[in-house]
Amino acid sequence: MKIYDFPMAPNPRRVRIFLAEKNIQMVYVHVDIFKGENRTVEFMRKNPMGGLPVLEFDDGTYLTESVAICRYFEGLQPDPPLMGVDPRDIAFVEMWNRRMELEIFSPIANVIQHTHPAFITRIKQIPEFAEVRRDYGLQRLEWLDSILAQRQFIAGERYTIADITAQVAIDLGVNLGGLKLLDGVHHVKRWHEAVSSRPSAKA
Amino acid sequence: MKIYDFPMAPNPRRVRIFLAEKNIQMVYVHVDIFKGENRTVEFMRKNPMGGLPVLEFDDGTYLTESVAICRYFEGLQPDPPLMGVDPRDIAFVEMWNRRMELEIFSPIANVIQHTHPAFITRIKQIPEFAEVRRDYGLQRLEWLDSILAQRQFIAGERYTIADITAQVAIDLGVNLGGLKLLDGVHHVKRWHEAVSSRPSAKA
Repeated sequence: MKIYDFPMAPNPRRVRIFLAEKNIQMVYVHVDIFKGENRTVEFMRKNPMGGLPVLEFDDGTYLTESVAICRYFEGLQPDPPLMGVDPRDIAFVEMWNRRMELEIFSPIANVIQHTHPAFITRIKQIPEFAEVRRDYGLQRLEWLDSILAQRQFIAGERYTIADITAQVAIDLGVNLGGLKLLDGVHHVKRWHEAVSSRPSAKA
Repeated sequence: MKIYDFPMAPNPRRVRIFLAEKNIQMVYVHVDIFKGENRTVEFMRKNPMGGLPVLEFDDGTYLTESVAICRYFEGLQPDPPLMGVDPRDIAFVEMWNRRMELEIFSPIANVIQHTHPAFITRIKQIPEFAEVRRDYGLQRLEWLDSILAQRQFIAGERYTIADITAQVAIDLGVNLGGLKLLDGVHHVKRWHEAVSSRPSAKA
């Protein structure tokens, strides 16, 4: 198995952190998004969406979508559990992970896609949309702050994939988007320092 | 257990179809989105996002996010399997379900949110964004047509949650958005007729 990867992109990092937490070694193949290497005919045969990461199995089939890749490894190696331990817990972790995707990751990604110079040639940027999404994301960070006032991690007292999704989103917004996402949200800041101090954060 | 539901909204329908396929009976509580019943203080205590559906457990906890609710019932009653049968299959079904969410459901929902009069008071509508998303969605439907040229259902030869997501999205676009989504995509049309003829389609 190997994973097609680009260090600077957020979704590949979600999988790298997930695998680091499980202590799974992986072969990574570098695909440079900035050079358009993910839009070549050859790469689009691996993933018709042109996105990263892509997991290649030894039989030559390709699995895409970060969370689907994570769930495959969760099934293969359940310890430590990052996606829940029984049907009810699995469902609640999925709920929190999807909330982090929809309420935190998605607005931050939208702001960057619709304002950052790197995306000018790749999508039709609509600054008005970026503004709406920035306001939404900042409002949702306050909601997340109220959640993290009550507990250690996003889905409860155990670190899960939901923490990884939010961590990667916030790092993306701060580092690439220059967004001040940790001002005034003290519980998010405490949680962000905790997840950032885990060895997996370097993945 | 009971589910807070609104018949006309797409996400509650995903769960109703899923439960109908599993022949699971459920108590549904009607929450009228058009009357703003999902934005009351009382409802927001159940789901701070204000979205439907919401599964209420008998102990008074609330599970949100359609796919998380589906995954809970998949764990509780695995037959018939709608989310895969082993770690690799589960991952591929998740990949296809997410592709249907991101490539089909999301653009169709965006077009409706940013053009339909029902959303004028609920979001800041940006017609230019709706246009970009309509073009994107139509292009992705052609890609889906090429997939369904090769097999019976979206994730392979078995009906799965990925079919439900695409079915609900297309019905939403056609019925509420007035979009001509089935013109010229013959394999999607054949598939849509097949899923629409299942008893669960009435759910």
